[in-house]
Amino acid sequence: MLFKRFAENPLVTTADVVPSMDGFEVIGAFNAGVAERDGEVLMLLRVAERPPQVEGFVSYPVMEAGAVNVHRLPLSDPAVDVRDPRVICHKGVVYLTSISHLRLARSRDGRSFTVDEAPTLLAEEPYEEFGIEDPRVTLIDGAYYINYSAIARTGITTVLRRTRDWRCFDRLGVVFPPDNKDVAVFPGMAGGLYWAFHRPCSGFGQLPRTWLASSPDLVNWGGHTCLLSPRPGMWDGLRIGCGSPPIRTEAGWLSLYHGADESQRYSMGGVLLDLSDPRRVVARSDEPLLAPEAPYETEGFFGGVCFACGHLLRADGSVWLYYGAADTVMAGAAAPLSGILASLGV
Amino acid sequence: MLFKRFAENPLVTTADVVPSMDGFEVIGAFNAGVAERDGEVLMLLRVAERPPQVEGFVSYPVMEAGAVNVHRLPLSDPAVDVRDPRVICHKGVVYLTSISHLRLARSRDGRSFTVDEAPTLLAEEPYEEFGIEDPRVTLIDGAYYINYSAIARTGITTVLRRTRDWRCFDRLGVVFPPDNKDVAVFPGMAGGLYWAFHRPCSGFGQLPRTWLASSPDLVNWGGHTCLLSPRPGMWDGLRIGCGSPPIRTEAGWLSLYHGADESQRYSMGGVLLDLSDPRRVVARSDEPLLAPEAPYETEGFFGGVCFACGHLLRADGSVWLYYGAADTVMAGAAAPLSGILASLGV
Repeated sequence: MLFKRFAENPLVTTADVVPSMDGFEVIGAFNAGVAERDGEVLMLLRVAERPPQVEGFVSYPVMEAGAVNVHRLPLSDPAVDVRDPRVICHKGVVYLTSISHLRLARSRDGRSFTVDEAPTLLAEEPYEEFGIEDPRVTLIDGAYYINYSAIARTGITTVLRRTRDWRCFDRLGVVFPPDNKDVAVFPGMAGGLYWAFHRPCSGFGQLPRTWLASSPDLVNWGGHTCLLSPRPGMWDGLRIGCGSPPIRTEAGWLSLYHGADESQRYSMGGVLLDLSDPRRVVARSDEPLLAPEAPYETEGFFGGVCFACGHLLRADGSVWLYYGAADTVMAGAAAPLSGILASLGV
Repeated sequence: MLFKRFAENPLVTTADVVPSMDGFEVIGAFNAGVAERDGEVLMLLRVAERPPQVEGFVSYPVMEAGAVNVHRLPLSDPAVDVRDPRVICHKGVVYLTSISHLRLARSRDGRSFTVDEAPTLLAEEPYEEFGIEDPRVTLIDGAYYINYSAIARTGITTVLRRTRDWRCFDRLGVVFPPDNKDVAVFPGMAGGLYWAFHRPCSGFGQLPRTWLASSPDLVNWGGHTCLLSPRPGMWDGLRIGCGSPPIRTEAGWLSLYHGADESQRYSMGGVLLDLSDPRRVVARSDEPLLAPEAPYETEGFFGGVCFACGHLLRADGSVWLYYGAADTVMAGAAAPLSGILASLGV
């Protein structure tokens, strides 16, 4: 594999995170967006918390009017389906067993992190009632654009927020309607427009595909184009979605994206897009650049997952990729940018 | 029921439409968008055509590189699922048994129509490979904006086109990613923005809901807001979607939308939205204003359906609603605008 794991892995575990609510248990600190500011490396973690349980019931959290309330359903009710540990299905509605918020972890060297004691962004709006997840951060003209998945019974939407100081976060609205995940905004324009990856759901083709959208202002999006489909039999044969925001290189926009194979093993690979028209795919990894092998990747809440939402481009020309491992912890790995491009035939 | 059916119903049947391809059968002429131009009433029909069948196989049409080709699958293959007459499921892909194009029917009085011999808009792009369906037409500043559902294995998207002369149709792109149907653009701005209804799909809440989006330019859309949900037990308890573009009244934006009850009976009712902020619902019909009762509504390809995509506002203050009946033919019905508003408590 081209990417070499950090010796410090895992970089953040659930033990490093103070629960945001009394009695709740932190079950995941993963899938972080990444940014740099004033010499500090910021990981905006997804922190998943599970409420206290009562014998004979399944308890689940719902944000209502700004507060998280715990509801419960009797396990003896045959209409309560808890076979998937992540969700509860009940009478046509899907609830989550945990609720996620976003919280900063900070580092001077990009390898040793300290997690903030308080959440940075919490579920607040009705369309966030089941939590906010999987942020990506894109720096454009001095402002950090943060998008995340907002989960509610009305569906999975993408919310865009903007900050300059990491204290005030403007709401720019729901930018993609349900269901849509794995959104990442490009760190610059092409052809006079902003661009973003997104992954809408379809009941038609069934295999989720990665689309591109363009925008004049980052708030309103159109020009939707289907960009990448899963490749049955390959490392990205079952499911794909963007990873971190793409890297602008002379050879094109380089995106490191996740793919799952038919055994639900999530790896990371690369795709290169034309610099002036990112709807044109130049090259795509035949083999993954990072696949789950380390114990913290193969075992956890959902084992066999490397899922990156952010990276750093270092002064020495290496890419430091930060990724959620097994839907539980954060890890890091490095590869030379030139090596990634060479693997794509550039 | 407030709406009174035209004595001329049905206004257009499949017998009135010349097939666009040799050997194909027209099985539906329905769900038309409506416009007025130079004293002529235009219905932009959805024309559904089924290819010739061969014993022992199911044949289905696919647009490929601008031409419609007929493919077939053996009915003896257990992987071929044809239980729903509208679709074929095969190895994770859903195909349609018919392919739709859009074709104009013209009238001087709005009741007696002549159908063009040739299609007006055909599936052309890859994301239209299974056809184009259910157009809505909105007149803004002298240009007619036509949106329709484009069906492909990559999902159901919404395409926006623009014409002034009904000869040249600019492509404004895919404005809503998959899956999304039942889109209608408002005929004017509110709060400095354009608005549209849309109905995205979600695997979460399951019941499809009607959302609003806003746009500065009609091409790029954001500010997605969940507006209307089905009301279990009522006439719109199972499924809802916008109908024709809303009517601007002094009391607010009046939309006539379709709802299906738990028995899949599709009726039309009204919703009134605040004039300056259409995200605010003022009133909603407790009872349908038009429900399937006539034989051409209760019997057909999919019986028990009144589904309107367009209307005319007449000089005498009446609304002429044009609707697809039983997914097969077009019909019309009239009601006084004041009566519709009164039914909503205005």
